[in-house]
Amino acid sequence: MIPLPEPMRRALTVAAEAAGAGEVPVGAVIVHDGRVIAAAGNAPRSLRDPTAHAEMLAIRMAAALLGRERLEDCDLWVTLEPCAMCAGAIAHARVARLYYGAPDAKGGAVDHGPRLFGQPTCHHRPEVYAGIGEREAAALLRDFFAARR
Amino acid sequence: MIPLPEPMRRALTVAAEAAGAGEVPVGAVIVHDGRVIAAAGNAPRSLRDPTAHAEMLAIRMAAALLGRERLEDCDLWVTLEPCAMCAGAIAHARVARLYYGAPDAKGGAVDHGPRLFGQPTCHHRPEVYAGIGEREAAALLRDFFAARR
Repeated sequence: MIPLPEPMRRALTVAAEAAGAGEVPVGAVIVHDGRVIAAAGNAPRSLRDPTAHAEMLAIRMAAALLGRERLEDCDLWVTLEPCAMCAGAIAHARVARLYYGAPDAKGGAVDHGPRLFGQPTCHHRPEVYAGIGEREAAALLRDFFAARR
Repeated sequence: MIPLPEPMRRALTVAAEAAGAGEVPVGAVIVHDGRVIAAAGNAPRSLRDPTAHAEMLAIRMAAALLGRERLEDCDLWVTLEPCAMCAGAIAHARVARLYYGAPDAKGGAVDHGPRLFGQPTCHHRPEVYAGIGEREAAALLRDFFAARR
């Protein structure tokens, strides 16, 4: 079996940590110059912030670290297909490449629902690579929701 | 002439302040129990944060103030039609009513582009009222971009 790329392994680790904190397990990391410069788990409950999805937190961390609002030389790795809010933020930040794990037929906005990057009004489309770590990411979500039932 | 409702006047004031700081002039306020509890201008440049649209900042402020991630008893007033990121955040926050000023044919995602609240996968649709303060909001934007040309 081919091992998962390091950024997706890191994203899965923060996703698992989020589950431990009672958050829906989604994790995201930003890679710049071949290094992970930001990593965050989903945290809307603990931060009491409806915008605190893993991708949003990772993007904000990376932008703060680099001291600029554009991340055109950065890649985002996230365990779940981004929602409309996060896909919009990815476009605003001009993220170069998006790697996501599990598809999200209900809430995803990249390859489901509004398919934001395919909209004529979308001003930036990252390269998108889906399915990396899908099995592991989906298992985390499944176990989380099964335990809460 | 009918005077604008107080929340939209407040949103226009913060939008004008944003322009003074070199930001695209958009302002947003959150109303809870008939009172403005959060107000923010667009600030991605000054905060070096691609997610720092007026709506996002106002939603995060209100959620922090109320100590919860849902704003189902709150209304959002914003001078410009929200983009996909902000419309997504409005849905996540379960904002009750959205009042916006000027339409945004290029970047708007409520009545243009992906029309997010009309998507079958959208899990919350606020009541939407458009055009309140449109003339004033559009003038702020027009003057801002004219001055930068």
